[in-house]
Amino acid sequence: MGEEVVLHGYFGPVRKAGKFLYFSFFHDYSSDPPRPLKVVSVIDSLSPQITKAAHQTLGSLHRFTPVALRAIVYKCAPPKSPEKRKSDEEVELRVKEIIPLNSVSENLIYTAKTIFPPEKRHLQLRTTKELCIALRLRSRTASECRKFLEENDFLEVETPLLFKSTPEGAREFLVPTRKGDGTCYALPQSPQQYKQILMASGVPRYYQLAKCFRDEDLRADRQPEFTQLDLEMSFATSDDVMDLVEGLVIRIWKNVLDVCVGPGFKRVPYWWAMKNYGTDKPDFRYPNHRIKNLHEVLPYLAKGDRFVEGFAFYGNTPNYNMDHAIEFLEKFKRENLSTRDDNYVAYIAGAGNETQAYIEGGMELWRDADLANIHGALWVHRPGAIVVIKERRGYYSGGNTKLGLLRSALLNKAIEQKFISSRSDYAFVWVIDFPLFSPTSADDPGQSGRAPFSSTHHPFTAPIAEDIQLLGSSPHRVRAEHYDLVVNGTELGGGSRRIHEAALQKYILEKVLKMPREKLQQFDHLLEVLDSGCPPHAGIALGFDRLIAVMMGRDSIRDVIAFPKNSKGADVMVGSPSVVPDKELQAYGLRRS
Amino acid sequence: MGEEVVLHGYFGPVRKAGKFLYFSFFHDYSSDPPRPLKVVSVIDSLSPQITKAAHQTLGSLHRFTPVALRAIVYKCAPPKSPEKRKSDEEVELRVKEIIPLNSVSENLIYTAKTIFPPEKRHLQLRTTKELCIALRLRSRTASECRKFLEENDFLEVETPLLFKSTPEGAREFLVPTRKGDGTCYALPQSPQQYKQILMASGVPRYYQLAKCFRDEDLRADRQPEFTQLDLEMSFATSDDVMDLVEGLVIRIWKNVLDVCVGPGFKRVPYWWAMKNYGTDKPDFRYPNHRIKNLHEVLPYLAKGDRFVEGFAFYGNTPNYNMDHAIEFLEKFKRENLSTRDDNYVAYIAGAGNETQAYIEGGMELWRDADLANIHGALWVHRPGAIVVIKERRGYYSGGNTKLGLLRSALLNKAIEQKFISSRSDYAFVWVIDFPLFSPTSADDPGQSGRAPFSSTHHPFTAPIAEDIQLLGSSPHRVRAEHYDLVVNGTELGGGSRRIHEAALQKYILEKVLKMPREKLQQFDHLLEVLDSGCPPHAGIALGFDRLIAVMMGRDSIRDVIAFPKNSKGADVMVGSPSVVPDKELQAYGLRRS
Repeated sequence: MGEEVVLHGYFGPVRKAGKFLYFSFFHDYSSDPPRPLKVVSVIDSLSPQITKAAHQTLGSLHRFTPVALRAIVYKCAPPKSPEKRKSDEEVELRVKEIIPLNSVSENLIYTAKTIFPPEKRHLQLRTTKELCIALRLRSRTASECRKFLEENDFLEVETPLLFKSTPEGAREFLVPTRKGDGTCYALPQSPQQYKQILMASGVPRYYQLAKCFRDEDLRADRQPEFTQLDLEMSFATSDDVMDLVEGLVIRIWKNVLDVCVGPGFKRVPYWWAMKNYGTDKPDFRYPNHRIKNLHEVLPYLAKGDRFVEGFAFYGNTPNYNMDHAIEFLEKFKRENLSTRDDNYVAYIAGAGNETQAYIEGGMELWRDADLANIHGALWVHRPGAIVVIKERRGYYSGGNTKLGLLRSALLNKAIEQKFISSRSDYAFVWVIDFPLFSPTSADDPGQSGRAPFSSTHHPFTAPIAEDIQLLGSSPHRVRAEHYDLVVNGTELGGGSRRIHEAALQKYILEKVLKMPREKLQQFDHLLEVLDSGCPPHAGIALGFDRLIAVMMGRDSIRDVIAFPKNSKGADVMVGSPSVVPDKELQAYGLRRS
Repeated sequence: MGEEVVLHGYFGPVRKAGKFLYFSFFHDYSSDPPRPLKVVSVIDSLSPQITKAAHQTLGSLHRFTPVALRAIVYKCAPPKSPEKRKSDEEVELRVKEIIPLNSVSENLIYTAKTIFPPEKRHLQLRTTKELCIALRLRSRTASECRKFLEENDFLEVETPLLFKSTPEGAREFLVPTRKGDGTCYALPQSPQQYKQILMASGVPRYYQLAKCFRDEDLRADRQPEFTQLDLEMSFATSDDVMDLVEGLVIRIWKNVLDVCVGPGFKRVPYWWAMKNYGTDKPDFRYPNHRIKNLHEVLPYLAKGDRFVEGFAFYGNTPNYNMDHAIEFLEKFKRENLSTRDDNYVAYIAGAGNETQAYIEGGMELWRDADLANIHGALWVHRPGAIVVIKERRGYYSGGNTKLGLLRSALLNKAIEQKFISSRSDYAFVWVIDFPLFSPTSADDPGQSGRAPFSSTHHPFTAPIAEDIQLLGSSPHRVRAEHYDLVVNGTELGGGSRRIHEAALQKYILEKVLKMPREKLQQFDHLLEVLDSGCPPHAGIALGFDRLIAVMMGRDSIRDVIAFPKNSKGADVMVGSPSVVPDKELQAYGLRRS
């Protein structure tokens, strides 16, 4: 108090309470969370010349001008209304001297309401409090992760980013060399192969915050480059990894968010999650609207590989009534249900066995007498319950059933409309026992094998021991020793015990996936490494961007990345990627085809 | 003691002292530094069946087989001769049960003397103690760096690796996209531009252990991808950065190496280092053989931009005599001095004004009377001193003068031959005031400007304020606010205050470097960012691989990287880079030209 300080930063807008009294806020970005300081500039006839000059400078300063500020610190009373407490108003600065340190473009117009476009990411970062907080939380979380892993004897090892093209699963980015013979590096999808090599190199426990790359058609919330917390443990089982990661997550939530979670995250098999939630990313905060198999009440619909499933839910908040439910369901139908889609029935249960707002998507109708049975099976005890029933064929595969997607969409909408009260807690769950293989889809290169399926995650995942005998006869029934960590319906990451025996790895690549010889050769180094005394090992990769987004309560990982790419893979601020002239491509022995 | 333990790891070679008594070592790699445990397997008629089986297994176990070992811990006397103390021999393990966990290829032959080729990097890592230690030291040093920077309020921010091509200085790797129109990302040479954008984004202090890429013809000890400790501070001066980094280095040396260095690293200008050591990476441990300007004693040789310089040294160890010196110089001449090279004279001073073993590389001879003056100037007071004199033209530029290279080579050879006693301490020095521009060389793309010079480091380096007036008239005389940290003749990294004003940045790119318009446009984003109120800022990048190599006392950074590339840029273990079939190139709209 009364002390003179020199600060560096920027002024907020200046409010002029007359010619001789200005108010403003000073941002120096050094506090966490960022907190502007109140500034007063006042002059009278006794003020020294330098203060008068500073006052004048403040009055005409362009926003965002970086300045050196000399000021005196005073105590001041906090404002009475709490909503006006924008800053640490115990303190205010009286301006003595201001030295502008750069000029600012006249084109940069700015008001309190300005929302800057992605082209001006630097101004988004400077003016969006949530982004500032996200970057700080990200840095702190990385620090907590490293601390925890180092305490647990993990060695941080950097693995190469200039790797080679291998059919691991995702599409890769290529990096041509200047040899001019078509040789390229490939950017790694993950450090998977190198970390397995480290296990065979006598590194007991490895970790890395690793940069990974996938040249995918960018879905809603994917980035062509992303960060994962990657770790691997030799002589370890899946349980060892899950226990360790559970400890890590509990520590992060405690130390960074000050929230207690766990211990003892639930572990559920893939089939159980698919059966009850219609997704391998179940949101355990809302367990009341689970999917039920209706084959006992509608036996004549469920034949062969045809299954009939349904779920029911009603609002649990006071504002929920039948009229709302009808309007809601009609709207939901228009937005989410397509009659071109395969069969379903959706309705709102009325009193007794009546139904209201019936929507029928082409599914074979059932007998009236079934209604009571359906309501019994789905625990529908009062009018207003929304019931959705849907047909499904074949084995569970992939991330969701169509009914599961419907259920999630309906639940989200109901929470948005406040029919169901939203929950702000964290429900962690491990989903285990995934199928080792999944049907190959058109947009997924897989392992380029001639088999009609690819590895669900990657071809190095170990099968569950008791299912190894099924590899030859019924590969679709083989379960993987793979585990996904899911929180509130979002996958944080996944891992597995890996195949550590060369013979089994070769068998799966060659005989089960039926990889052509030239692709198989790309894994020769790995087979040799396994064959030289590689210990059993298991590991995991957590999506670090996703982790931070979940901690920040954000839907998009773009909100927690300093310089994200947009949905076209472009950084519109710097203008990447850009057209490279033919002449420069020539240096790499390449030209446009 | 007497306790039963279960360990996972590998056995070393088994020494059979009869049928019933085997000795070996057990490696579990979990101790730091790695330390094998002594193992005894002994059976007699009373041993349980399982112990007998384990004994048999141990006797026939292939090296490198990963095993689970159940054993009893006993105390044992340490061996009398210290050189036999291979391990922590206070303890020995008595084998109870061994479960092999993988098979090992019969082709893997191994004796204590086996040196594995780079193709078997995993076995190098497993069996080379120095590599194990290097990886652990690397992990620990990274941890110390982060801890120090976090304590100093630095925020860790990850910047994109899919950047765009800009003429920053070095040659870049391109990453083609699948748009098929020649658009490419480029891998960053450093996060330079993004970190400057962060400074304009209100991040006060940024750091990152960043991956960087340079598509260079690989010199002796460069890697196409490498790691740098990258940091930047807003509202900071060069001194702030140097002071901070000095604190960091002192902390690392203390906490990781347990060695006290500094404080108060010397700071010398570039011209001083070049004048006295003939290099911008002076090794201050050997200050006795500095280069002297001889223009006062040989005025008729030094005319115009022609300078004559020389140095002298003699061994400081007892084994140094004249015969050695002659043999040494003759050998050195054959290996290092080429008469096709430009002018020099080298000889060994005899008694008085005589010389021995005269080597004359074509330089104009001087008058006999000059010898005394030369010896006076170079402080040659006794026979046996090796004297080298060389001509030089023009301004200092680049990293070394030819005489500087000669001096280093001679010094290294003399240390190797033990004429000069080697030093194991660390002499840190900051080299400052580099020239802002250097003549463009053929193998360096520079900034593609039409000026006959390029930025010495990168085009964002700020000129020293008082030299700005020379930018138009005498750009070669403009000094940069750049600083290099050098230890024992090795550059650990460099940094600078950056240009933070758009107008000056544009002037240097456009008017001084004379960049063509299309190249200039590639920096538009940066100019806009500077123009939006970017604060003054300065930073540095330390070569992290080099730092670890220096700490480990290794010459090559390959010895401190888990999976380095060889001199052809290849990882011979995994076989990267590899030929990518034309079909896959097509997906990127490319074909071989």
